Amino acid sequence: MASKKSKPRNAFYAQSGGVTAVINASACGVIETARQHKDRIGKVYAGRNGIIGALTEDLIDTSKESAKAIAALRHTPAGAFGSCRYKLKSLEQNRAEYERLIEVFRAHDIGYFFYNGGGDSADTCLKVSQLSETMGYPIQAIHVPKTVDNDLPLTDCCPGFGSVAKFSAISVKEAALDVASMAKTSTKVFIMEAMGRHAGWIAAAGGLAGQGGDEPPHIILFPEIAFEPESFLKKVDETVKRVGYCVIVVSEGAKYADGRFLADAGTVDAFGHTQLGGVAPALASLIKSNLGYKYHWAVPDYLQRAARHIASKTDVEQAYAVGKAAVELALKGHNAVMPAIVRKSDAPYKWTIGSAPLAKVANVEKKMPRDFITKDGFGITAKARAYLAPLIKGEDYPPYKDGLPQYVTLKNTAVAKKLPAFELKK
Amino acid sequence: MASKKSKPRNAFYAQSGGVTAVINASACGVIETARQHKDRIGKVYAGRNGIIGALTEDLIDTSKESAKAIAALRHTPAGAFGSCRYKLKSLEQNRAEYERLIEVFRAHDIGYFFYNGGGDSADTCLKVSQLSETMGYPIQAIHVPKTVDNDLPLTDCCPGFGSVAKFSAISVKEAALDVASMAKTSTKVFIMEAMGRHAGWIAAAGGLAGQGGDEPPHIILFPEIAFEPESFLKKVDETVKRVGYCVIVVSEGAKYADGRFLADAGTVDAFGHTQLGGVAPALASLIKSNLGYKYHWAVPDYLQRAARHIASKTDVEQAYAVGKAAVELALKGHNAVMPAIVRKSDAPYKWTIGSAPLAKVANVEKKMPRDFITKDGFGITAKARAYLAPLIKGEDYPPYKDGLPQYVTLKNTAVAKKLPAFELKK
Repeated sequence: MASKKSKPRNAFYAQSGGVTAVINASACGVIETARQHKDRIGKVYAGRNGIIGALTEDLIDTSKESAKAIAALRHTPAGAFGSCRYKLKSLEQNRAEYERLIEVFRAHDIGYFFYNGGGDSADTCLKVSQLSETMGYPIQAIHVPKTVDNDLPLTDCCPGFGSVAKFSAISVKEAALDVASMAKTSTKVFIMEAMGRHAGWIAAAGGLAGQGGDEPPHIILFPEIAFEPESFLKKVDETVKRVGYCVIVVSEGAKYADGRFLADAGTVDAFGHTQLGGVAPALASLIKSNLGYKYHWAVPDYLQRAARHIASKTDVEQAYAVGKAAVELALKGHNAVMPAIVRKSDAPYKWTIGSAPLAKVANVEKKMPRDFITKDGFGITAKARAYLAPLIKGEDYPPYKDGLPQYVTLKNTAVAKKLPAFELKK
Repeated sequence: MASKKSKPRNAFYAQSGGVTAVINASACGVIETARQHKDRIGKVYAGRNGIIGALTEDLIDTSKESAKAIAALRHTPAGAFGSCRYKLKSLEQNRAEYERLIEVFRAHDIGYFFYNGGGDSADTCLKVSQLSETMGYPIQAIHVPKTVDNDLPLTDCCPGFGSVAKFSAISVKEAALDVASMAKTSTKVFIMEAMGRHAGWIAAAGGLAGQGGDEPPHIILFPEIAFEPESFLKKVDETVKRVGYCVIVVSEGAKYADGRFLADAGTVDAFGHTQLGGVAPALASLIKSNLGYKYHWAVPDYLQRAARHIASKTDVEQAYAVGKAAVELALKGHNAVMPAIVRKSDAPYKWTIGSAPLAKVANVEKKMPRDFITKDGFGITAKARAYLAPLIKGEDYPPYKDGLPQYVTLKNTAVAKKLPAFELKK
């Protein structure tokens, strides 16, 4: 066994689910750290389009990339190797897929599985680790946390969130100045839609644009608080009458007490088709028809989570740190764990990297605590500010050429296949 | 007359129409330059909420602001004194308003009128100058160009445009990376809506994100080209099949051959009201129902024109320069003119400030030349790139504190009124 242990085994890294402005910084942390331990880790193979790359044996040889290209991942948004939305079913429902993963890992002598994603991928990561034991193929499965939704438990925050939070706060601050300038004769109500289907973290971060009171944003709508049109419209009207205008941040997941999403209210377009999405326009319409105010709305959509140009320095550092720590945890022999960000103090913000067992991470969703939201349900509390403020701190500008950020495109050279093809379940 | 000439007269400055990321940089240029010529220019009064401030004698004494606060205008977006959408009617229709302006200027010994706006305000500025002659009250009226729409003639570009163009190009570049990462299993078509009701300049700037060919954006829709659903859908489908995904930039002013705006297609919301705006969702719906692709759309709305955090350095410098030049032109005795940006060369971009007579600026709209748009109507030509590229060059970051840009809020101290109230025409 001793001789086998001394032979370096390869690593597999994949990106999962919605990408972020800093998920590649985690990839950078994983690959750069692995490269420093060539005695223990051979090559780092990346999955093309996430876990699908593992299932279809479509692996990318990251050793073909220069040190400079890998370093540039730190300032490049989105998923450099491709990501996917592909949830592996339970072991009982689709054991074949898990067995195929192990088969591919075996064929390429992969001893380390680094999976960079949110709650679903933590679950997949845990299952791979369990199956590896059952199937007698040793692999260390480490989950690298990532999600703009900030809904993973046991970590202070999720890499990706700090940057989208910063985009949110800056966008609200800038757009609110615009609205304030023009409110006398033009737009009275401005609505910005923030991502977050289940948790209101990104919308909450928009609250950092002002200090509360009559500073914008004046209203935040969270998925955690049932939407009541009457009290909402009353607050909009009062705000316009008192302040001259009203700035609203609404989470895409805002819903009525009966669970219906505001965005699914079912608008019908000119072609007679139900049009999905757009809680901001739905809300604007509600305001227009009830209060008559001139409105504008913004739906930044992917712009918010891809906005590497205004990434939070704190977030970039944390994203890199969890990637680095994942490799270090693996080298220390850990398995079925996730590097977690541990907050030591709010101001000054101090943090370190700890680790959390995947069994306690998988399938747990961290929503906004009720005491982060003001009593009336329309704003954030001092406690929320203390939590959120440090996460958007610092700027980490990418290099520019001719006015555009210089993001890297990797070669993404394929590793030769060794196995027969595998059909993905639809 | 000699003694009267030597007494410094006051200046009036107002912001007009939609604000931009850099209109305050022009204000900064006007005020700082005026402060350097106290022998010729007394105080600079700003109109609160634009020309309405002049009509209602609601003037702001900018001499109460510190040099530091005025300097900070250079990096503060939106309208620091308030702007307005208020078009003065023709002299024949509403002579009283023009006479009132002269009356207010006379009451406050205003000899210089600096009006910072687009085409409509150039027209107002010209009329003020004409009426001042007729009424025997001497005033020099100088128009300071500003509009994100980039549709003023006789100037290489319009301050405000370069920054929104940069936001557009960066946003498309970043969002396209996001879409490319996920296209295998998720969104296939992404649509970003750009401002520009009559001219496609901002949408065109989105084209700078790629170098054409199969680089995103793959399709740009301009108001200058009649929208044909069939050829559009064909191109979308081909692109998805060939590239794997399709990124579209659509101008809010995109319209059918019969002149109907795509955005006015008349979507009806859940409450039965016609919902205006949103060419992006309308287009998404068209794609979904005809091709069935999963889509996402973004409408950045005010976020794009307020995005001072990613302003173009070229734009900031030009905005300041036209403010400075306006004062210098006035001091040289000019009247009814606009400082204009004159391009000396494309690469390296060299420019200087010239001047244009308002009679030739007012009511002329500069659209995209046909040879800036590719033959198929879906992209920009090399000629357009040569024109656009230098305008987004350079970064000019605002100072940050606690992760947020530090924008200035002025004291905006009111000047004591001397005249009876004046009723604005509705």
